[in-house]
Amino acid sequence: MKQAIYTVTVEFGDCDPARIVWFPNFFRWIDAASRHFFVACGVPPWHETEKTLGVIGTPLVDTHAKFIKTASYGDVLAIHTSIAEWRGKSFVQRYKVMRGGELLMECDEVRIFAARKEDGGIRAVAAPESILQLCKDH
Amino acid sequence: MKQAIYTVTVEFGDCDPARIVWFPNFFRWIDAASRHFFVACGVPPWHETEKTLGVIGTPLVDTHAKFIKTASYGDVLAIHTSIAEWRGKSFVQRYKVMRGGELLMECDEVRIFAARKEDGGIRAVAAPESILQLCKDH
Amino acid sequence: MKQAIYTVTVEFGDCDPARIVWFPNFFRWIDAASRHFFVACGVPPWHETEKTLGVIGTPLVDTHAKFIKTASYGDVLAIHTSIAEWRGKSFVQRYKVMRGGELLMECDEVRIFAARKEDGGIRAVAAPESILQLCKDH
Amino acid sequence: MKQAIYTVTVEFGDCDPARIVWFPNFFRWIDAASRHFFVACGVPPWHETEKTLGVIGTPLVDTHAKFIKTASYGDVLAIHTSIAEWRGKSFVQRYKVMRGGELLMECDEVRIFAARKEDGGIRAVAAPESILQLCKDH
Repeated sequence: MKQAIYTVTVEFGDCDPARIVWFPNFFRWIDAASRHFFVACGVPPWHETEKTLGVIGTPLVDTHAKFIKTASYGDVLAIHTSIAEWRGKSFVQRYKVMRGGELLMECDEVRIFAARKEDGGIRAVAAPESILQLCKDH
Repeated sequence: MKQAIYTVTVEFGDCDPARIVWFPNFFRWIDAASRHFFVACGVPPWHETEKTLGVIGTPLVDTHAKFIKTASYGDVLAIHTSIAEWRGKSFVQRYKVMRGGELLMECDEVRIFAARKEDGGIRAVAAPESILQLCKDH
Repeated sequence: MKQAIYTVTVEFGDCDPARIVWFPNFFRWIDAASRHFFVACGVPPWHETEKTLGVIGTPLVDTHAKFIKTASYGDVLAIHTSIAEWRGKSFVQRYKVMRGGELLMECDEVRIFAARKEDGGIRAVAAPESILQLCKDH
Repeated sequence: MKQAIYTVTVEFGDCDPARIVWFPNFFRWIDAASRHFFVACGVPPWHETEKTLGVIGTPLVDTHAKFIKTASYGDVLAIHTSIAEWRGKSFVQRYKVMRGGELLMECDEVRIFAARKEDGGIRAVAAPESILQLCKDH
């Protein structure tokens, strides 16, 4: 299974008055790690795939996260990212947020490949074959 | 069951290049809705309960969210918040994010009552009786 | 001079380990106050003016802010917003962030009316007469 | 003059519906660059200096920024940071945000060394000699 690692240094402003990372920031980093996985596999940026494939991105439809240990500023986090399952118009993206050998947080998401609807909204489309080729193991 | 409603207006800067709310912002609002539930029940701010009860806040240990419809700037969202279950040192907080009659997102969280450990970390403590009295129905 | 007031309640997650508002959040709120000024004057949302006038928004080119007093969570802030000067393709937008009668922060910005360039970048355009009519006093 | 460089990769979620960096994010990065300058000079983290020197951080009292060119996701930014002037209880910290050879944004800030007041607020204190020794050229 292909895996990409996205590295983050926790900043002072990422932490709250309890001096630990304010949890929505984990989702900021996970969203970046999601896109970096595709970039690492060779998928072009979404503003290009919008023109070539009609795909504007991979919005989230479901997420389940467990927060195991806290982090604070100065910590360096490595987010290990992979695709746990391909499901036609959606897929399960999996994350493990590590600080050295410690697991801090894990998260399973369901995301779709999205195209723009005529009314400005978005709709799910089948994963383009060219993207699957880049992201799957062979 | 006690319920509080937290209202948010979506701003331009809450939206991403796909022109929809960037999902980590939903978690920002849900965290605010969590605290507002306790404030609405009459629980003092955490910097007071830190002194009186040793409780520094209610950090998240698990969250599961479903994203049903997108939102964009100008939308007014009402986040309906309640406690679905009390579990000694933890509790399940439930959210429904509505735009008028439409359900946009729902989320179930497990949170703990946290106290400061001597090494600067945090640990779960039993829900203080005074907080339970304020938050439960009678 | 027309003035709009945008109200914000400071949240736990807006504060940093020093337990005061982390300053970039003031700019989040000021950007929202900027747009709300135009909305309060009757200017349509930017995704409409993009179609009707070619204007995609009012990006910032210069900002100067003074931070006079700190704020923390639970505080209610009123951001008083006006246009101090109109300058053809740009304008000076002025903000005073108040907590009751106390001035916490003040800010003067230069913003432009922006249109999309063919290469995807943006360029300044003259303020559309219809927008000036809505925003100026008569 | 000592200089530190802080590197940032712009993410999808840092950009707004106009597909350019939403400007408050520049201030998030600049705040991180400010702290990294001190870290690069060998100054301990603020939760240590709070105990040893009474200094809880360097909050901002004034900032003036010019936005020269826009950035979008995928761009790699280098924030060149230095101290332009030492002024007893305050100092001027200077930033140049570069994308390769292009200057995107520049910013001059006035910051203070802050200590905790008894009522929970903060006050300016003289720059500790040990910090000056680390940050000044010799």
